[in-house]
Amino acid sequence: MSVTKPQGFRAAGIAAGIKANGKPDLALVVNDGTHLAGAAVFTPNRFAAAPVQWSQAAMARNASMGTSPRVVVLNSGGANACTGAEGFADTEASALKVAQLTGVEAEQVLVCSTGLIGDRLKMDKLLPGVETAYAQLSADAGAAAAEAIMTTDTYPKSRAVAVESAAGTVCIGGMAKGAGMLAPELATMLVVLTTDAWITDDLAKTALESAVAQSFNRIDSDGCMSTNDTVILLASGASEIQPDADVFTAGLTEISQQLAQDLIADAEGASHDIKIDVVNASCEGGGLAVARAIARSNLFKTAIFGNDPNWGRILSAAGTVPAATAPFDPTQVNVTINGVMVSRGGGVGADRNLVDLTNRLVHIVVDLNAGDASVSLWTNDLTHDYVHENSAYSS
Amino acid sequence: MSVTKPQGFRAAGIAAGIKANGKPDLALVVNDGTHLAGAAVFTPNRFAAAPVQWSQAAMARNASMGTSPRVVVLNSGGANACTGAEGFADTEASALKVAQLTGVEAEQVLVCSTGLIGDRLKMDKLLPGVETAYAQLSADAGAAAAEAIMTTDTYPKSRAVAVESAAGTVCIGGMAKGAGMLAPELATMLVVLTTDAWITDDLAKTALESAVAQSFNRIDSDGCMSTNDTVILLASGASEIQPDADVFTAGLTEISQQLAQDLIADAEGASHDIKIDVVNASCEGGGLAVARAIARSNLFKTAIFGNDPNWGRILSAAGTVPAATAPFDPTQVNVTINGVMVSRGGGVGADRNLVDLTNRLVHIVVDLNAGDASVSLWTNDLTHDYVHENSAYSS
Repeated sequence: MSVTKPQGFRAAGIAAGIKANGKPDLALVVNDGTHLAGAAVFTPNRFAAAPVQWSQAAMARNASMGTSPRVVVLNSGGANACTGAEGFADTEASALKVAQLTGVEAEQVLVCSTGLIGDRLKMDKLLPGVETAYAQLSADAGAAAAEAIMTTDTYPKSRAVAVESAAGTVCIGGMAKGAGMLAPELATMLVVLTTDAWITDDLAKTALESAVAQSFNRIDSDGCMSTNDTVILLASGASEIQPDADVFTAGLTEISQQLAQDLIADAEGASHDIKIDVVNASCEGGGLAVARAIARSNLFKTAIFGNDPNWGRILSAAGTVPAATAPFDPTQVNVTINGVMVSRGGGVGADRNLVDLTNRLVHIVVDLNAGDASVSLWTNDLTHDYVHENSAYSS
Repeated sequence: MSVTKPQGFRAAGIAAGIKANGKPDLALVVNDGTHLAGAAVFTPNRFAAAPVQWSQAAMARNASMGTSPRVVVLNSGGANACTGAEGFADTEASALKVAQLTGVEAEQVLVCSTGLIGDRLKMDKLLPGVETAYAQLSADAGAAAAEAIMTTDTYPKSRAVAVESAAGTVCIGGMAKGAGMLAPELATMLVVLTTDAWITDDLAKTALESAVAQSFNRIDSDGCMSTNDTVILLASGASEIQPDADVFTAGLTEISQQLAQDLIADAEGASHDIKIDVVNASCEGGGLAVARAIARSNLFKTAIFGNDPNWGRILSAAGTVPAATAPFDPTQVNVTINGVMVSRGGGVGADRNLVDLTNRLVHIVVDLNAGDASVSLWTNDLTHDYVHENSAYSS
């Protein structure tokens, strides 16, 4: 149930000494397949970290050379973001070290980093760590790799799914980290997906973009976009099976949604997982804008923390979305919380005291009565623990 | 130092029994002048409360009739938002009652409400309360009126300034409430400004819009836009002085900025007041977008609560603003916190440990090096007390 579940992959996860507390902080994922393909999606943050800049350039070079990424090196204990030219040189040195050890081209090495922004990486720990990790690469170490990329995560996130089509069954594995800064586009989130399917780079790209749009871009924990978000797909082709494109895309979407759920469930300090369904929107984009406005309302999020079905905060957040973005008539909007329609026609509905918010899962349905598009977005409540964890993180 | 400081105004503030705790909850402000003028600005929230809908329609009717608003009736203890046609009828009944008592046209009565969204007002308390307040109107009761509009405010906010021009000295008074949902456009904020200047409705409108843009729209406590925000200016002309338009606008801006500062200083649960200056932006709108992105980052706000000069969270928030909105080169951006340039050229600057964040006031300067526009925005930190107060508000 990890990145090494599909055939053709080895991984490693070790403690290199980058983290002061001695916990695992360095991971490698190597694609040993013969029918290689790959794709990657990155944060649009304009202060993209050095590893993101490196990996974006590497993917562009792979595209022009007709090659595919083969290795991912990931570290926790430092984001290597906002570290200038020196920080980029550190990332480059890491990639070159990995390329040399594994015998691949530099652009076939993608780099991911996570941790505090604005500190240089401890290269005197990281580079020897890469050698140690390389020596420990194995087809059983997917779980160890998932553990080595954790920051404030309380547990590692690994998944695998089997994808069946007429051509046969292929496997997709994956690991993810990220517990804060979870917002679109992507999140403070590193994800590596692996598959033994024999696919093209084109399918890898279209399937990954489609899957991300319906999973990692549909979680918004705290509205904060990271400098380091990266989702990478590596295909080994080791199954020798070429799956149907739609079926493969559906499978990739499924495991991505599972990992996205894992991230929301472990979001920093959260006490409720909140699913916001905006239904009967005029279009998907409009519905998503309404869902995101609600998910980002601190007043809504604190109310849910307090088990308070304060539906006025849902409507007041929805009301901030411009009519041009999401056309709807405020007097036609209904709000349902955990099955109770507390607001009907933009006004008072059923007694709010009928709503039970004691369970961790909260389900909000906002019916805009403006069309036939529907979207789902996951978020969390805003809690004392979130404030505590994020006020003390770098201290 | 209140709405009754300028000549030609009476006010009242009483406990009508709308609030369950028996505290003052109903206010009247009456313009007794002979050279009347007035203007108002409202929330753009699409779920605008019944009193906002009423007052907007009233101002439109005043404009077409060549009349001016004469009385404002304000209540705390209930927002009368998302209350449907019945809620609007309640607002109308209040306005008609006030019009009858004071002998003015219905459209000359503006209505403001604040409190929980989604509950009907206690009209059996409010209408008798209007009679009591009317009977207590006096030129000394500005402070009482300011007290009656408080919700989670910990103290009433009243101000007055003298405005001198060649024509003579006029006075502007004002009161404000609002401690949460403080965000643009406007805030959960009710403001009544009064002046004894003899001005036209046109000057009232242009001066108010200009003052609001530089004051109440430059505070963003928690990113949440209210359904009830209203800022009203009433001019009595009782001084018989017609001030210079620019001087009057500057004076109105000054008192508006004072009241906006009062609101930030009393924001729910805040332990730091944060001034964000974005300097050398390509244009005002771009600079404001960057400032607002920072002000709305929960990760930034919790870091400040923890006295943590985590400048990476400032840049990562700035990096979410599209280049089309705010063109700048990330490698040319400097960040200064309380006088220490912790990030230079988008990378590491001075040692972050040099920053002292123990004082309540925090000053952030983000230099975009992209032009010559500068903007200031005020916000607060995100604290345990904010979460506590807003998770328990309606319970």
